[in-house]
Amino acid sequence: MVYKIDIQSNRKSQDGTILGKISDFHEQLIVHEREKVNILKKSPLTSVSDTEVTYYDRFEKKEKTALMFASNNYLGAITNQICIDTAIEATKKYGIGSGGVPLLSGTNILQNQLEQAIAQTKGFDDAIVFSSGFAANLGALAGLLSPDNLIIHDKLNHASLMDGTIMCGAKMLRYKHNDLADLEKLLRENSPLYPGGILVVTDGVFSMDGDIANLPGIIELVNKYNVLLLIDDAHATGVIGEKGRGSLSYYGIAQRDNIILTGTLSKAVGIVGGFITAKQEVIDYLRIFSRSNMYSTALPPSVLASAKAVFEFMQTTDIVERLNQNASYLRTRLKQEGYNTLDSQTAIIPIVVKDQYLLTQISKMLLDRGIMANYIFPPVVPPNLTRIRISVMATHTNEDMEYLISSLNEINATHPIKKS
Amino acid sequence: MVYKIDIQSNRKSQDGTILGKISDFHEQLIVHEREKVNILKKSPLTSVSDTEVTYYDRFEKKEKTALMFASNNYLGAITNQICIDTAIEATKKYGIGSGGVPLLSGTNILQNQLEQAIAQTKGFDDAIVFSSGFAANLGALAGLLSPDNLIIHDKLNHASLMDGTIMCGAKMLRYKHNDLADLEKLLRENSPLYPGGILVVTDGVFSMDGDIANLPGIIELVNKYNVLLLIDDAHATGVIGEKGRGSLSYYGIAQRDNIILTGTLSKAVGIVGGFITAKQEVIDYLRIFSRSNMYSTALPPSVLASAKAVFEFMQTTDIVERLNQNASYLRTRLKQEGYNTLDSQTAIIPIVVKDQYLLTQISKMLLDRGIMANYIFPPVVPPNLTRIRISVMATHTNEDMEYLISSLNEINATHPIKKS
Repeated sequence: MVYKIDIQSNRKSQDGTILGKISDFHEQLIVHEREKVNILKKSPLTSVSDTEVTYYDRFEKKEKTALMFASNNYLGAITNQICIDTAIEATKKYGIGSGGVPLLSGTNILQNQLEQAIAQTKGFDDAIVFSSGFAANLGALAGLLSPDNLIIHDKLNHASLMDGTIMCGAKMLRYKHNDLADLEKLLRENSPLYPGGILVVTDGVFSMDGDIANLPGIIELVNKYNVLLLIDDAHATGVIGEKGRGSLSYYGIAQRDNIILTGTLSKAVGIVGGFITAKQEVIDYLRIFSRSNMYSTALPPSVLASAKAVFEFMQTTDIVERLNQNASYLRTRLKQEGYNTLDSQTAIIPIVVKDQYLLTQISKMLLDRGIMANYIFPPVVPPNLTRIRISVMATHTNEDMEYLISSLNEINATHPIKKS
Repeated sequence: MVYKIDIQSNRKSQDGTILGKISDFHEQLIVHEREKVNILKKSPLTSVSDTEVTYYDRFEKKEKTALMFASNNYLGAITNQICIDTAIEATKKYGIGSGGVPLLSGTNILQNQLEQAIAQTKGFDDAIVFSSGFAANLGALAGLLSPDNLIIHDKLNHASLMDGTIMCGAKMLRYKHNDLADLEKLLRENSPLYPGGILVVTDGVFSMDGDIANLPGIIELVNKYNVLLLIDDAHATGVIGEKGRGSLSYYGIAQRDNIILTGTLSKAVGIVGGFITAKQEVIDYLRIFSRSNMYSTALPPSVLASAKAVFEFMQTTDIVERLNQNASYLRTRLKQEGYNTLDSQTAIIPIVVKDQYLLTQISKMLLDRGIMANYIFPPVVPPNLTRIRISVMATHTNEDMEYLISSLNEINATHPIKKS
């Protein structure tokens, strides 16, 4: 039989009960495991998430090695010795946790210092650090907006921004991906209906396609219609702009006034957490009105201290440049070989695959060749844009990347991936 | 002038714009800072969150010391040497981060091990570790329920459970706090309308009152009406039950089948993170359908390893017993002295204060006497239940607790707190 992943059919059970849909899904998972597919369920890493990893193969019940093309550790910060030493020192000095939510007893001086470092890197007044990027986006949208506001999203914005939209109850519209004409149409039609109450939201770098938002054009429209802009710099931070400062720096944009920027400490920064940075009044307000900040424990001292160390690592070395050299090399080579990498301009490189069934087969064949990649399927992306998702690291060698390409070419001979 | 906190009036701006409500709130904050109140904005800790702390007083611009009665570090786990060493070893071996979301590349073997330890402690098949307790509750509710389901909450359930309810779109009803008759009324009326599609939700230990849910009674009703139960054991884990196993253990309840349990790694466990534990099928399902799991980076290796070490610390020492001796001592003494501690039975002890203005004054007077507590005001609690919220630690001495009481008595002489 042909194993097909279909996680959407399971949102409702055949018998109408909550446990019913859980059983329905379980049947799908049994087939998944029998087919030894490593997509819905993962074999855990037994090593650091570096360019070369070991993992425990749950089917063969033994440890194996692989070349990692699926890590967000773009800069190799996870194994940077200064960052590790900083984490260890903070643990020795402040213990393993912060002991409370930020607004009660959980604000450590390290949190203030990290928030200042983030604000400075991004060119804003102040910042709030959250337990995750997901929580930051939730907190920003649910904190800022009410049901009488309008939120206008790029169609490819991250899931957490969608969830924040549900949470705040604002009316939502979406414009075609990176399409300024479509955005302007929505602004023209709706700005009279929502005086001052519109927020435009875009990823800085899009998480699944790796392309960059047209910020100069978007900001022109945001200014013209006197609305606010939220940029999610999760995949831009540490990747684009001067020394990895992100998407505003990439375009040399100085404006900050009507902009709120969010991001994560878990992609290029390599740890965990998220942030909002903006002008002082907005930050003071969101510290109280972001429920995901108000009701979540502050990050551990080791995370706060080492995240600050990673920002210093980015600013004081050529590591971001090395990442972009690698990313550029791999994008160019994949295109030369005839793969469809969409409009990727960054370290996230999609390779479009015809369908989900093919994707499950390729995932096994790549892992057999010792390559770990990510595999993205509906509903995260449309069915015809099912993809392998490659994440490049500054620490990959050209040989690593050429091995990926030759492996893809081998697989392509029997399981066509290239554009026809 | 009398400074009053009023954060609810600011949810909508006077001029109808998003930035308008931010400015409105900023004016309130200016008064807050002028009055030197330490409630809406915090002076950061410059030490570990232990029984004695140092903090940076932003008004006097210098470091000071205080006795801590506001930390979730109930067991002193944050400074436990074995837990610290475990965190450091994991950082050395696996680096500062996990490198990805759990379902892509971010599952480290340490995560599997922690999940097993949690499931074992709680008596379930398996568990999922989240970036926060907030994320776990969001993920459980939004993952399990659809708009055609009904969710029935205890009125005092945690904010994250309310946000999860908004996210899933299910219809919501609330029963009077810990009131079985009211819960049964709602179940009787609604179970014919939602065949198999009802979830009852309760905190195990209530986060603001410190009392314990009547689980034997609730489970009898859940069984009678054939619905599901979700228990949030955030403040029960490490505090009640045999060796801190939580609320089901506290009552000696063996049943697990129709129960889903959530909790945090940030209260007694002292670090950061949250979890869901349940039977295998439910966990397998929620790994995919909890968006806050699917779209959030896995916790750092140091957090995963040290959290497991804290569970071992709880199980192999008398630390939980020592916590409960302290909590019992302080509750008894506060009651003897005539303070209103509501129905607290745990390490969370509320002391009800007449109104918010009095609370802001008391917060300053306690800090002047070198005591850090939490101050809870509307909308978190009703106006007439505005309170000081004391968190006891296993490491507090009787002298620490007596100093708190004599300080309260001193303040009470001019600013009445005691029940009249």
